[in-house]
Parts: sequence; structure tokens; C-alpha cells
Amino acid sequence: MYKLYYAPGTCALASYIALEEAGAPYTAERLDFKSNQQNSPEYLAINPKGRVPALVTDRGILTETPAILAFIAQSFPQAKLAPFEDAFALAEVQAFNSYLCSTVHVAHAHKLRGYRWAAEEASFADMKCMVPKTVGACFALIERSMLRAPWVMGESYTICDPYLFTVGQWLEGDGVDLAALPKVMAHRKRMQERPAVRKVVEEEKA
Amino acid sequence: MYKLYYAPGTCALASYIALEEAGAPYTAERLDFKSNQQNSPEYLAINPKGRVPALVTDRGILTETPAILAFIAQSFPQAKLAPFEDAFALAEVQAFNSYLCSTVHVAHAHKLRGYRWAAEEASFADMKCMVPKTVGACFALIERSMLRAPWVMGESYTICDPYLFTVGQWLEGDGVDLAALPKVMAHRKRMQERPAVRKVVEEEKA
Repeated sequence: MYKLYYAPGTCALASYIALEEAGAPYTAERLDFKSNQQNSPEYLAINPKGRVPALVTDRGILTETPAILAFIAQSFPQAKLAPFEDAFALAEVQAFNSYLCSTVHVAHAHKLRGYRWAAEEASFADMKCMVPKTVGACFALIERSMLRAPWVMGESYTICDPYLFTVGQWLEGDGVDLAALPKVMAHRKRMQERPAVRKVVEEEKA
Repeated sequence: MYKLYYAPGTCALASYIALEEAGAPYTAERLDFKSNQQNSPEYLAINPKGRVPALVTDRGILTETPAILAFIAQSFPQAKLAPFEDAFALAEVQAFNSYLCSTVHVAHAHKLRGYRWAAEEASFADMKCMVPKTVGACFALIERSMLRAPWVMGESYTICDPYLFTVGQWLEGDGVDLAALPKVMAHRKRMQERPAVRKVVEEEKA
């Protein structure tokens, strides 16, 4: 039995969906970011980074979305969530997820979490102004060069799909023009039709 | 035969070392960042992100350090650079590398590449001021909670080691107090004694 620590609206949604898609035995434990529960001593003992997601397993605790997603895919091979038997195809999956975590998520984070990298209110405001442009540029690249169809990697649904869906949930709030992203929007719609996605999105809202 | 696009002083060093450690057949192609060669039309056709590393393979082009490192490890299993047969151990490797790319490298990038996330000179200066603190905090966590010994994952040398070594090359320039990082510094020294590391570091300097 796995335990996933998450908070609604965060990138932990990707791991949550992947657990559900894999048919993994798990429970989901919600953290309250409004009361800063992610920085409580209890949670820092689980994840000293004070972030979500964290996945408790019987071997120990895992963090970082790309690592957790690949772990779920490898642990439940019958769900075929990543091509572990093909090094190149797996690397394409990992490259996509790595781009989401290191560039796209980071661009988005400058909207509300500028204090991670600067100290002045004026800098936060400056960073916030750039977010539609920077996140927009990331998604323009995804639209143009990275997203195949119907799924990110083409015919096979993989761990890239819940992660793109998750980061894509932030587009409206980031002020990105959705009309420029027809493939991304079609992907979102396709995701919303999957029973696992529906179930997890409902649970996050509850 | 692989071809690695790199530039000296960048995170591409990690992939360069890994290719050498794996005994992979490869050539290394240096880009001149001073003349902005990474944004030339020729290179953007290889990597539309305008970044290094990029690894040309006979199946296609791979980007993103964590993906390239895992690809090298999986393609050359005899080099034992990652525990692909153990999903949990592999996830620990991937979580470490994911932290380096999404948090540590990003903290460092705010020193000279603030224009990625802001527009004003004052914001760049503010970001630059924070770098010793933010990169220092990342490395304090690595020192305290993540780096086993003698290698990142303990007894086994993995793809985490060249990546940590690479990001650690920036510590002095980032103004981080090395005296607070004895384990990281011992790891650097251990890395510098490896023939593959020596060779690649010499080639980058040449």
C-alpha cells in the first residue's frame, strides 16, 4: 500500500492520476497549504523539501514528480505507462517530463513563488508580469514540437499525459492564450474523458 | 556512434562524463555560447530549446540531462550506472537527478539568466543577491540528507555522481561557503580522481 501526500492544484495531481491509472493500492493524504502544513515538523520529517508530492512506499519515501511517475510505471508494468523495454523511447518520455519539471513548472512558479529567488516586492511584480509570456512560450513549443497525438508520445498513453494535463491546469491562471494551443486543449479534453482522471479530479475537489 | 552537443561550464558536463564512464562510442561537439551559437538556426534545428546538452542518436535526438543520463545507463548496462532492475532504487536515482535539474540548477541560473523570468535590471540584481543563499540551502540539504558516501547512492557509483559533480562546479562562483559542505567536497575530490572525469575535464579545458 502506497501513501501519496498531495495538495489540490499542485503538480502532485500527476502522480495521483498515475497511481489510479496503474491500479496501484494507495491512499491519498491531503496537505493544507493554506495553513502551511507542508512546512510542519511532521511533514518535513517525511519530505525535508517541504513540497508535494511525496510517495510513501514500503522501501522508503520518494519525491519529485518525474521519479515518482517512472516508479509507478515500472512497478505496474501491466498498465503500460512507460516503455521500459526501449531505452530510447523511455528517454523521450523522461525528456518530456524533465522539461515539464525544470522549465515549465519553474516558469509558472514565478507567478506566486517569486520569494524563492528574490527578496523585493518589485521583483515579484516583475516576475509575475513575465509569466504569461514564459509559460506561453513553453506551451507553444509543446504544441509545435513535442505533443504528438492523441497522446504526448503518440498512440501510447504514458506518464507524460497526466503530467502535461496537470501543468496545463495552470494555463488560465497564468494568462496564457488557449486559442493558440489547439492540440494541448484537445489533449486536455481527451484526458478529462478518462475514468481515472475524472475520479481523481473529483476527489481533489471534494 | 553518439554525438553530444555541449558547452564548457554547463550542465552538459554530466552527460559527457557519463558517456565516457559507460565506454560509449561518441564524439563531442562544442558550442560557442559567447557567440550565442546555441540559438543559431543550425542548432535550433537540433534542439529547439536552444540549450545543451543534446545527444544525437541513430533513433533521434535526446535532450534534458536526467533523461540523457538514464538513457546512457540503460544503453550500457555493463557499466552499472543505474539500478534499472530495481524500481525503488532507480527512483531514488531519478529523484536525486530531478532535484538537481528542477531546483538546484534553477537556483543557480538566477545569477546570470534572470532575464528568463523577469525584465528589469533591479530584479536581476535582486535575484543575483539571493543565489548564495538559495544554492547554499540546496547544497545544505544535499550534504545533510541526500549524499551518502562514498557516492551519492552509497557504495554504487551512478549517474547521480557526474551530475552532482557538475552542478557542484558552480559553488565557488555562486558564493556558497564550501566549509559547510565537507561531504560534497570529499565527493568532488573522489570524482576528480576518476580517469573518465579527468579526461573529460581536460577536454573541456582544451
